[in-house]
Amino acid sequence: MKYGIIGTGAVGGYYGGMLARLGLDVHFLLHSDYQHVRNNGLIIDSKEGDFVLPEVNAYPHPEYMPLCDVVIIALKTTQNDQLKTILPRVVKKRGVVVVLQNGLGVEKDIAQIVTDAVIVGGLCFLCSNKIGPGHINHIDYGAITLGEYAPEYRPSGITKSLEFLSYDFSQAGINVQLSDNLGEARWKKLVWNIPFNGLSVVLSSTTNQLIGSLTARSLAKELMIEVIIGARKCGYSIEKEYANEILRHTEQMVDYKPSMKLDFEKGRPLETDTMYKNPIAEAESAGYIMKAVRALFMQLKYLEEKHCHI
Amino acid sequence: MKYGIIGTGAVGGYYGGMLARLGLDVHFLLHSDYQHVRNNGLIIDSKEGDFVLPEVNAYPHPEYMPLCDVVIIALKTTQNDQLKTILPRVVKKRGVVVVLQNGLGVEKDIAQIVTDAVIVGGLCFLCSNKIGPGHINHIDYGAITLGEYAPEYRPSGITKSLEFLSYDFSQAGINVQLSDNLGEARWKKLVWNIPFNGLSVVLSSTTNQLIGSLTARSLAKELMIEVIIGARKCGYSIEKEYANEILRHTEQMVDYKPSMKLDFEKGRPLETDTMYKNPIAEAESAGYIMKAVRALFMQLKYLEEKHCHI
Repeated sequence: MKYGIIGTGAVGGYYGGMLARLGLDVHFLLHSDYQHVRNNGLIIDSKEGDFVLPEVNAYPHPEYMPLCDVVIIALKTTQNDQLKTILPRVVKKRGVVVVLQNGLGVEKDIAQIVTDAVIVGGLCFLCSNKIGPGHINHIDYGAITLGEYAPEYRPSGITKSLEFLSYDFSQAGINVQLSDNLGEARWKKLVWNIPFNGLSVVLSSTTNQLIGSLTARSLAKELMIEVIIGARKCGYSIEKEYANEILRHTEQMVDYKPSMKLDFEKGRPLETDTMYKNPIAEAESAGYIMKAVRALFMQLKYLEEKHCHI
Repeated sequence: MKYGIIGTGAVGGYYGGMLARLGLDVHFLLHSDYQHVRNNGLIIDSKEGDFVLPEVNAYPHPEYMPLCDVVIIALKTTQNDQLKTILPRVVKKRGVVVVLQNGLGVEKDIAQIVTDAVIVGGLCFLCSNKIGPGHINHIDYGAITLGEYAPEYRPSGITKSLEFLSYDFSQAGINVQLSDNLGEARWKKLVWNIPFNGLSVVLSSTTNQLIGSLTARSLAKELMIEVIIGARKCGYSIEKEYANEILRHTEQMVDYKPSMKLDFEKGRPLETDTMYKNPIAEAESAGYIMKAVRALFMQLKYLEEKHCHI
């Protein structure tokens, strides 16, 4: 059983590192950190215990990697145009592809690249950063919700692949939840991601600054309600009360810069296509226009353009 | 015939200066610039010809002012809580109050303060700044649209007061348009003000940066369409095509920081109540929620709070 990790950053480095620590056969695809990791291994600082993997199977290019039974995609979605060259080289026939990315629609694209693979979507509730080459700082949380993809995001139930992944991940110390409805799990994550990622960029704020302001909190809630209505129009049964639940949960969280805010600060492209454009299009094709969400999306697109021109 | 100017800044200083230059009997209320203007007069730099008024009737407090036939309000709307003490002291019985402010709802408030006055609303299409004490820089434009207020913003027609004001203003070199429907004129101005004031603050941009981006331009248009729908629900017949007209017009304008952007940069309170809160409430009471406009309003409120806390 071979695991392949596509993208060894804050997410792939952490989860891949956990699996490798357990002694599983894990193969890491790296880009700029390749030479450093080949020489020095991976370092994981974690609130649940630091550890070092002095020797890891590191690769600078997918064609040097072995075919893997399970391929975990932990790239930024803005790099997903690489998947059509990477995946056919690394996914074993009838292998499993696990998409640890935010937003909507990636599994659908992957299903067209590796047509015989089982595709699993994963929602990570993880605060971690890459703080140096091959050096991950795990700040808090770490649970993953896994759900299997079926065409049109139809509910798939709890499949054998999910149970098998759940076993390995749990053995590695990762808290796993299984979902019988990947589409719903993805929309639920969007209920948080859409307001907090976007507003943290546009209003130049951390989660605590936003949640601590009655004004920003109620704006976040309006956006959440639009996302919930969008999800419901698409056939998912998320209750409006879920917005309050998430707001209360966010109050309890450590202060945090959402990933889009970090991307923006570092001048990296923003994951707006999967996190905004695709959900907006899904809701619209179900007859609902998420107007405030769309305005936020356009603000983000503008700021990204402007940023790049400076 | 006495004119009173309440607020001698970029707007009141310019128009009041034009009236005084004509030789009309104009009385200026000042605050921080009082002593300077009393000693040095008003200086108007204008693309249509600079002029200086070495001696003006300047007052530090309304109780020293004479009763005026026409009182022009050119304060920021954020200072409008002062009007209930100022107006009863300066408006002659059955006098005229001209409100040269943006947004919606001020005339209604004033009608409760000076119950026997004629109230006229004015929309200024003016680029000017105060660049020093008693020193106004008129950059471009300068036309005013005047309309008389009637309860509930019912169309008033072209009244005698409007014609009389139009005569004096025109003699003074001010380009005046008369409107028989003040509410409609105010909403039409909002079609520009709501997107460009708000987005210039939230996206930290000038008008040229916004109009030059396809993304920001189409966001501005979405906001405009919401405002137009809001206006139509309130009974005003503004066509959707008006949005394109204004966008084309904005392309031709000199690059410009809208007044709210200047206020924000200087840490002054923002005119969000009249420019956003009141129109949002009007549209809502007519059954229409301007969702993207409301989200922009809440972003502005948050940034204003945050600004003040820093």
